[in-house]
Formats: sequence, C-alpha cells, structure tokens
Amino acid sequence: MDKIILDGMGGDNAPAAIVEGAVQALREDKQLYLIITGREAELKAELAKHKYDASRVEIVDCPDVIGMNDSPTEAVKRKQSSLIAGYWMLRKEDDICGLVTAGSSGATIAGGQLILGRIKGVKRPALCPAIPNVNGGVTLLCDCGANAECKPVMLCQFAVLASAYAQAGFGKQNPKVGLLNNGTEEHKGDPLRQETYKYLTQMQGINFAGNAEARDINMGDFDVVVADGFSGNVALKSIEGCAKMILAQMKKQFKSSPAALLGALFMQGGIKRMKKNLDFDRFGGALLLGLKKVVVKSHGSSKPVTIKNSIANALAIYRNGLIPKVEDLLAKVDPDNLITVEDE
Amino acid sequence: MDKIILDGMGGDNAPAAIVEGAVQALREDKQLYLIITGREAELKAELAKHKYDASRVEIVDCPDVIGMNDSPTEAVKRKQSSLIAGYWMLRKEDDICGLVTAGSSGATIAGGQLILGRIKGVKRPALCPAIPNVNGGVTLLCDCGANAECKPVMLCQFAVLASAYAQAGFGKQNPKVGLLNNGTEEHKGDPLRQETYKYLTQMQGINFAGNAEARDINMGDFDVVVADGFSGNVALKSIEGCAKMILAQMKKQFKSSPAALLGALFMQGGIKRMKKNLDFDRFGGALLLGLKKVVVKSHGSSKPVTIKNSIANALAIYRNGLIPKVEDLLAKVDPDNLITVEDE
Repeated sequence: MDKIILDGMGGDNAPAAIVEGAVQALREDKQLYLIITGREAELKAELAKHKYDASRVEIVDCPDVIGMNDSPTEAVKRKQSSLIAGYWMLRKEDDICGLVTAGSSGATIAGGQLILGRIKGVKRPALCPAIPNVNGGVTLLCDCGANAECKPVMLCQFAVLASAYAQAGFGKQNPKVGLLNNGTEEHKGDPLRQETYKYLTQMQGINFAGNAEARDINMGDFDVVVADGFSGNVALKSIEGCAKMILAQMKKQFKSSPAALLGALFMQGGIKRMKKNLDFDRFGGALLLGLKKVVVKSHGSSKPVTIKNSIANALAIYRNGLIPKVEDLLAKVDPDNLITVEDE
Repeated sequence: MDKIILDGMGGDNAPAAIVEGAVQALREDKQLYLIITGREAELKAELAKHKYDASRVEIVDCPDVIGMNDSPTEAVKRKQSSLIAGYWMLRKEDDICGLVTAGSSGATIAGGQLILGRIKGVKRPALCPAIPNVNGGVTLLCDCGANAECKPVMLCQFAVLASAYAQAGFGKQNPKVGLLNNGTEEHKGDPLRQETYKYLTQMQGINFAGNAEARDINMGDFDVVVADGFSGNVALKSIEGCAKMILAQMKKQFKSSPAALLGALFMQGGIKRMKKNLDFDRFGGALLLGLKKVVVKSHGSSKPVTIKNSIANALAIYRNGLIPKVEDLLAKVDPDNLITVEDE
C-alpha cells in the first residue's frame, strides 16, 4: 500500500469535492491508501454518499481549519488544522509517501519548509505546475509563486528540481531547460537573469538550452522553464486568463446562430479532444518541489477530478522516485559553482 | 494634412509589407500624409506595384538599415538608417505628428530617448500594447519590455502614461488602473510592488483599483495594468503563446474528421468573429509612451494590415491629443510624492 495524506478541508469546494475525488482515486488505484485529515463528522458524512473500499481509508480528526486569508506563519502554528496535522504526520511516519492539499498556497509552502523540511542542500522549495503545450505534452514552469524574490542560486536549483520532476513525472531522459527571459539572446534581461544564465551554462547534469521567451512555454520548445516566482506566476496566470477568454469567446460564437450551433454539434468530438489537451487540471495542480516528500498543491477551486488527478500524480512521481532523483541530480551539480553564486 | 513618418525598412517583411500597409492607410485616411524612410529605389519599386495618391507620399532616401541584432546604442548612431533618420526628422519638423516602425524594439526605444526626447518629467518611456479582453475591449499593459528593471516612481509614471493613452486612444474617461502582482491582497509581491502600491493609492488623477493578477489582463477588469518591463513582457508573450497554441489546436480539430470540417464550415462566421476579437494586431503593436511625439512600435512580423492599423492608431491618438493629455495628467500628479518615491 502507498499511503497518501489528503487535506480534507482545503480549497473552495471542501470537503465534498475532496472526498469525491478521494473516492475516485481509490477506485482507480488499488494500491492507494488514503489518510484524510479534517473534521471527522463532516468527512464521514461526505464519505457516506459514496461506495468505496473502507479498508483503504482512514480519517484523522482535525477540528481546526486554515482559512485562505490566514497568514502562512500563523497557519503553521495551528497543529489541529487538517493541513498542518497532515504535515506533522508526513514528517513523523516513514511509510507515508506524500501529501495532497487544495488549501492555501502560503500555508502549504510554510508548512513544507518549517514542518516537513527541505531536501539537504535545497535553498527554497518551488511550485511547479505542468502546463499543456501545443505538442500535446507539458512544459514544467518552476517557480510559479513560492518565491517572489530570487537569487541566481535559487533559479539554478529550480532547474535541478524541475529536471528531476520531468524525469520522474514524464519520463524525459534529458529534459531541455530554458531560463524565462525577455528575449532569447544571451545578454538579455536584468542582472538576475544574466548571472543565472552564466551559471546554468556551467552546471553539470542539467541540459540548459538558453533563454526561453514566455511564448515558448505553450510552444513546447522546452521541457522545463525556470523563473523567479513572481514572473513565473505572471506567466501561469496570463496563460490561464487567455485560455479562459478564448474558451468563453468560442462558447459565445457557438451559440451565435443556429448554423453555428449545428456546426458545433458536428465538431463535438474535436472540441472535447481540444479541451482535454488544454486541461490545466490534467496533473492536478502544482508540485511543491524541494521537500523531503512529495507534496502536491491542487488548485483552490479543485473539482473532484482535479483531486483525483492530484492524488494520482503524487503517487506516480513517488513511485518513480522523485526524491532520490532530486538528491542524485543535486549531488551531480558542482556545489562549488552554487556556493560561488550564493556568495555574490 | 497629418504627417506621419513610416520606417520603410523595419521588420521581417520590409519593405514590401510596409509599403502595402502604407498604401492601405492612405486609402482609408484622406488627411494622412506619409513620409517613408528607406532605400529609395526599393521603396519606389514597391510603391509602383500599387495605385495610390502620390501627392500624399514622400520618400526620404536612407541607404543604411539597422538589423534586428544591432545593439541599440550602436543603432542610434546610424543617422543614415531609415529609423534614425526618421527620428531626426520627427524631432526637427514641428508639423510631423508621429512615427511608425516595425524595426528593432531596442533601437526604437533608444532613438526615442536619445533623439526625440521624453516629455518633461517622464523618467523612462514605456512600451504599451492594447491586449484584447473577454469583453471585446482591450486592456493596456504598460510597460511590456522597455524597462527590465524598474523603480516605484517609474511604475507610478507608467500608470499616468497609460491612463492618458486609455483616454486618448479608447475614450475611457476615468480608466481603472491595476498593478500587476502575484496576488490581489495589498501586502502581496516584492518590495517594488509593495512600495508602488502605497504610492499609487496616494496619486491624484489616477483611478487606482488595486493589485491585478495576470489573468485579469484578458478578463477585462482593468483598463490599464501597470508592470515592470520584465514581467509585462512575460505576460504579453504568455498570452500570445497561449492564443497561438489554442488556435493551432482548433485548426487541427477542424481537420480531424469530415464531420468536424463540415461543422467548421457551418461555424465559419463565428470563427471569423472570434479571430477578429482576438486579433492582437487590431491596434498595430505597442505605443512607445512618454516621448514628445506619438511613436508606434509595430510587431517585427507586421503584415500590411498591421502596418495600416499602426498608422491609423498613431493618427487617432495624435488627433485625440495624447501628448497634451500626458502633460496634463503628469501635472496633476503631486510631484512631491514622486520625488519621495525616487529618493528611496
């Protein structure tokens, strides 16, 4: 059995959507064992609405709930909350592989750093979503929000972390890494980008392919795009907003005339396939990379299918050895290089 | 007559696309007088392919051409180039209203600063494209590439510049301004964002409505979104990349089966309307704001219609008094505030 902790109270649709996603995940993976944290009575009431294998579900009663507006540092102190209690269990019990939450990003990051802890040598954990690209594959964007301010050494490490994820999560043997910049030429960008570029070219074990422009994220020219958390967040949310706008426009046009509606009917299959290719929830949110165990931060607005995908993704990358891969890759990177970077 | 200088040699498709766009613009606006700079023989050969009103076109022979890879500071010295010669004329001749170029961004910005000059009080010019939003309108994103590194005073001025553009270009009386940030709460972001937020709330004459997330750009909740040139560039290119990906996916699905193709035929009108709504070239590239005259930087890959739109946009905002509006608005902003910001 592979044990995963699921934050039963995190996100806008908790606990109903969380529990429904949990039941779907249990159905699809017979080796999955779920520990759901949260208010026991509420969780039990939701579980009772479904058919599921009760021998693979455990509820841990946590009377406290962290709100989306609680400050991360305050949140971490609330040991009776579903997320923080989950982190403590994840830290203490060796046989638990990972944690999935749709709760507050800030609290998830703070709890990861302060309770679970980082892999040795990692400066900062980073959020890394898998973004659909035009090839039907994904591009990993790291960081996209955990660290608004970054130093070159952090960006270099994000390259290591996300390369390990590309290997463990998507079977990429030698993932191509780009540095998010405002142009492709070597000299482009601010001092942060210019220094990071220099160090990335020197790093062993990383397949650095130069600067990436933000449009390359969806164009699929890179497996990994490295960014500071601020501009990574801007890229991620720009893409989300643009996709939302275009799908809204499409829907409007489908309904604009009887002919268009008829056309849309003929195209139904194609539209469904397209929506599936563009589905940002296919991998259920972002991985919080750099921690001692697998942590998946699902969207705050996660639906049951998102939670199911987040759990499946957490299991898959645990089984594919994400954590040892990060450790291996970090060991290969010449630490002297990184220390030089850090000292600057 | 309203005189506009058109860089005949700038961009990937020059001079053919430039000249064709010029002819279209002349046809649509009988008050337009164009001064086209570039290699005279080439420009004349292109013009000869079209019917146009020769009394409203003037060619200024410029034997030199700036390449997309020339450094901006080197480029500015090349007085015989189509762009730089254009800037010198724009500076010297009072009756020329503006300049349109599809040439190198770096050279356009450098020439604007060093030759044409900034409006009194403006720290730095900024690139400001109009991005289509879900309401069928546009959101102005300022800066999106001229200034990779910014101070709070610069971001505050971008709010002023783009507000004037929203008024002169789109008739918005009290344009709603957002600060691009990694969350909507007041405390969000790095020190640059936190300080800028504080100053924007204090600025007279600006309708500051708080932090904007990158997804808000396409959602149309703000008329103006203010950003440092690095993250603004990331937002712009992320949106371009996403739109390109989705349209490519759509095209693929249209062709995926005879039924889909038939469906697409029924939907033709709707698809055309949608593409028009999503057309990034509707306003022909970005305005270079903060300079003494109107300068429009059209995309490097501008097609004739883009050039035509760029010229029409330059004319419209000149006629609507963009420059005096910027001066007025700058005067209204309490300069003490800005000086305080600058000193920090």
